[in-house]
Amino acid sequence: MAKDTIAVVGAGLVGAGWAIVFARAGHPVRIFDAEPSVRAKVLDGIRANANDLKHFDLIDDVEALMARITVHDDLGAAVKGVAYVQESVFESIPVKTPVYAALDTLVPDNVPIGSSSSGIPASQFTEHCKTRARMLISHPVNPPYLVPLVELVPAPWTSPDVVDQVHALMTAVDQKPIRVNHEVEGFILNRLQGALLMEAWALAREGAASVADIDKTVSEGLGLRWAFMGPFETIDLNAPKGVADYAARLGKLFHGIAASRNNPEPWEAPLVSEVEKERRVDLAADKIDERRAWRDRRLMALAVHKAKAVKQFG
Amino acid sequence: MAKDTIAVVGAGLVGAGWAIVFARAGHPVRIFDAEPSVRAKVLDGIRANANDLKHFDLIDDVEALMARITVHDDLGAAVKGVAYVQESVFESIPVKTPVYAALDTLVPDNVPIGSSSSGIPASQFTEHCKTRARMLISHPVNPPYLVPLVELVPAPWTSPDVVDQVHALMTAVDQKPIRVNHEVEGFILNRLQGALLMEAWALAREGAASVADIDKTVSEGLGLRWAFMGPFETIDLNAPKGVADYAARLGKLFHGIAASRNNPEPWEAPLVSEVEKERRVDLAADKIDERRAWRDRRLMALAVHKAKAVKQFG
Repeated sequence: MAKDTIAVVGAGLVGAGWAIVFARAGHPVRIFDAEPSVRAKVLDGIRANANDLKHFDLIDDVEALMARITVHDDLGAAVKGVAYVQESVFESIPVKTPVYAALDTLVPDNVPIGSSSSGIPASQFTEHCKTRARMLISHPVNPPYLVPLVELVPAPWTSPDVVDQVHALMTAVDQKPIRVNHEVEGFILNRLQGALLMEAWALAREGAASVADIDKTVSEGLGLRWAFMGPFETIDLNAPKGVADYAARLGKLFHGIAASRNNPEPWEAPLVSEVEKERRVDLAADKIDERRAWRDRRLMALAVHKAKAVKQFG
Repeated sequence: MAKDTIAVVGAGLVGAGWAIVFARAGHPVRIFDAEPSVRAKVLDGIRANANDLKHFDLIDDVEALMARITVHDDLGAAVKGVAYVQESVFESIPVKTPVYAALDTLVPDNVPIGSSSSGIPASQFTEHCKTRARMLISHPVNPPYLVPLVELVPAPWTSPDVVDQVHALMTAVDQKPIRVNHEVEGFILNRLQGALLMEAWALAREGAASVADIDKTVSEGLGLRWAFMGPFETIDLNAPKGVADYAARLGKLFHGIAASRNNPEPWEAPLVSEVEKERRVDLAADKIDERRAWRDRRLMALAVHKAKAVKQFG
């Protein structure tokens, strides 16, 4: 049976990543972007990424994937008859608002529209849409075809059925959706990341350890469990009787540590310069691009590993 | 050339894990424990773990490893002529203090003594030792033969040379040591973990997402990068021009999020019960042990993957 067509609106890095996710799962994908120069290069970018995925055996057939993707210069034509719209235009209220005004009338009102917004909640650009009940945040991690988490965040007026529909679609295309129950600044992922980052910057400020050693604490320590278990499951398994036992043993210690940081400081300029200096010793500015390519290869190898490990051990 | 002998003092789970680390690297290991019942079973536990490691090709030869390990009932005999002492007795000041008083006189003063203490700083149980300059914290993650991070934390009187020596030894036995520059509550690892946990509990308290979905945010999102890159390297690669660029773009957002949590709440009993209830739906109490075995298999598979990925991609 032919799969539903998906529209991707906005063809920057994030939109291109989404096109791969949907096309990899067998969906025809129509990409729209208002900017001719973006449209002109999006397929080449996708092909390069698809070749990398093929190299790691993460997809079977580059040409079959490419054949499912088309690029459009007319928004109405791009969204006609689709089952879902993933919007990934520039993250600013003045940019998103007119796009949603257009989608409001162009897309039949039973079709969900998810926004890739990483910070602006949907209520800030969908309020005046007649069909706002089918609009929500569907926030990916970059690149979405390697890091599968998707945060689904309804606006106060988003229909629960729509959240369910997008949850089912994301699961079907091999993403890992979560339900954020209400709009909260930074959603879940950036709040958790932010909490750890604030402490990392504070430790750097105090000279408790070098930037490289703070990084190693995660990459050779905490991050190993967190690559396959969340923080609650981690502590649930780290006390004889589970999470309540852990809380009884260590809750006071962690509250004490947190209380000692109850006046969070901004990442002030001299500290930022200091951290920047340490990073540039470990990674010269002209090597950043190369290191990003390394990161993506490591993410691909990890994706291969995780798929095998889940198959073997659950 | 024969490798130096290492003494492991205290043969619980942590001490047994350390014995594997040193024996795996070819060192003769002498294990001491004051408790006969602990001594009686430690080798069986080590053998079971060594068999698992062999199954994953993480060691070559179980018998060769076991042949390097001996168990002793006399502390003086156990530490005689060793190059390093790793202490892993019960984590309490009244327990550790007399052990250090004994080590102070039994171990030649040029031999470093590292404590596995995860929270109590060395100054609290080494102050009255004559040879306290060679004593420090050498805090592992459990199990140390799968999660290589080691936090080296000097007391105010620890000699910098001793930190360097233990750093070199840990590196030589394939651990990943970091230097914590001064005693700080929770050291680095538990401060970073604690910061993320505090936010996770707060999100659960507010009903922002289910416990399972908060976990998924890490295990299918943040944790993938953190399995091979620390938080600073992650943000360094996530803005076009590196970490200072990232701080300029997002520092204010993260400071705002942190400021909204400037009065950290304890993990209060009703919340703990709620989280415990959600966890027990996802994992019944009588399945916790089985899930721990799953975790260890996943950690072993991840260790195999990381070794290969480092070899292939750096």
